[in-house]
Amino acid sequence: MNLRLDLAYHGKPFRGFARQPDVRTVQGDVEAALSKLFRSEVTTAAAGRTDAGVHAMGQVMSCAAPDDTDPIKVRDTLNAMLGPDIAVTRAERVEDDFHARFSARSRTYVYALLEGVVPDPFLADTTLWHAEPLDLDALGEASGHLLGPHDFSSFGRVPDPDASSERVLYELRAARDGRIVRIRARANAFIQQMVRSLVGTLVQVGEGKRSPDEIPGILAARDRSAAGPVAPPHGLCLVSVEYDGGWSRPV
Amino acid sequence: MNLRLDLAYHGKPFRGFARQPDVRTVQGDVEAALSKLFRSEVTTAAAGRTDAGVHAMGQVMSCAAPDDTDPIKVRDTLNAMLGPDIAVTRAERVEDDFHARFSARSRTYVYALLEGVVPDPFLADTTLWHAEPLDLDALGEASGHLLGPHDFSSFGRVPDPDASSERVLYELRAARDGRIVRIRARANAFIQQMVRSLVGTLVQVGEGKRSPDEIPGILAARDRSAAGPVAPPHGLCLVSVEYDGGWSRPV
Repeated sequence: MNLRLDLAYHGKPFRGFARQPDVRTVQGDVEAALSKLFRSEVTTAAAGRTDAGVHAMGQVMSCAAPDDTDPIKVRDTLNAMLGPDIAVTRAERVEDDFHARFSARSRTYVYALLEGVVPDPFLADTTLWHAEPLDLDALGEASGHLLGPHDFSSFGRVPDPDASSERVLYELRAARDGRIVRIRARANAFIQQMVRSLVGTLVQVGEGKRSPDEIPGILAARDRSAAGPVAPPHGLCLVSVEYDGGWSRPV
Repeated sequence: MNLRLDLAYHGKPFRGFARQPDVRTVQGDVEAALSKLFRSEVTTAAAGRTDAGVHAMGQVMSCAAPDDTDPIKVRDTLNAMLGPDIAVTRAERVEDDFHARFSARSRTYVYALLEGVVPDPFLADTTLWHAEPLDLDALGEASGHLLGPHDFSSFGRVPDPDASSERVLYELRAARDGRIVRIRARANAFIQQMVRSLVGTLVQVGEGKRSPDEIPGILAARDRSAAGPVAPPHGLCLVSVEYDGGWSRPV
């Protein structure tokens, strides 16, 4: 049977999501636990390959499982095996054609910043401290220029030089909630470091160091050096992955 | 002049609050930063000597400072020097007779537990995961027996054998907020490990393993083995220290 797992994880202790030899990764930990549980080697697919230090509240994985698998038991057993840094928030049987990566319609990330002169040790791992308040109006204007289909090569990398760096950005908006500013980005997919480069550039706009009007030129340049810096990973979180109703419904 | 500092810190990276040679402590870090800033050795007093792993949102410290000290500048400079694990949330000049420890009327701690079958990686450092729901009515009944002045030697240690282990517990109550249960304890002072032993015992009551009626017998025993286990430190936080109005008012 085909199994879907929804996961939350704290990025700090991992060298990223994707399995790599000899270092701790989220996929490595999950596959090791599943292989032990199913008594055979398990390979997983995942919706988003988050970078080292990036968190997730709504990562989605899929894999083949023995036909008599009880998904609830998988969830609870994995949660007991995986320890405090990863949680399986949901496990369910899904249609055979569901694939965590290829069936995904879009991914949603949130980047969190903490405003104010006093830092917060309890948010230090999950927000970027930014003492000065950001100009969210300017940031919103800049975001408008980034929406839609664009070649985002000024904002990230594609490992394969023949692959397209065009992506469709459906949503990019910033909102203030007390001292926290959240920048929410949803796209069909993201190229490497794209959300963090968008955030690094938007923060410069919010600081008044760049004008929103510079964005079209940055996009047109198709050159990494045209955009702002890559924001640090610890403020970023993969919050959800969107599928068509039929693909994510339990069977 | 006499300086009051209010601090928040994440307990994980420290071997407790109180200065010790050769290990990282909150007081050690703060005194090192103050000594550097004031260019002379600074010794601090503090309201609560939190154990290793215990957090604080409202620790209070006091120390002597040069007469021309600008408290706001101290706050901002310390926040830049101390890094992400400690924050000075407030700094102010106070009356000469203010002493962070001896002037304190009471200390308030909160112990946080996370209920539910699914753990949460973002709360793993600050809550104790408890999959089964707790019986807060029984827990409340047990708490009632603990209020007031008691010899708490069944619930902790006093390093000095001649010192009293009598303390006055003003408040002990549990409340549920979504999946989080918070046990709030306020006393004139606490003996070592007292809050965590109270919580360990109350959790047993909330699990139905002990009856609330056992509490008077546990208090009367004056024996550590009569009470429940010491709850782990990471769920505990010193949330505030209470002073008479006049002592905490800025001069």
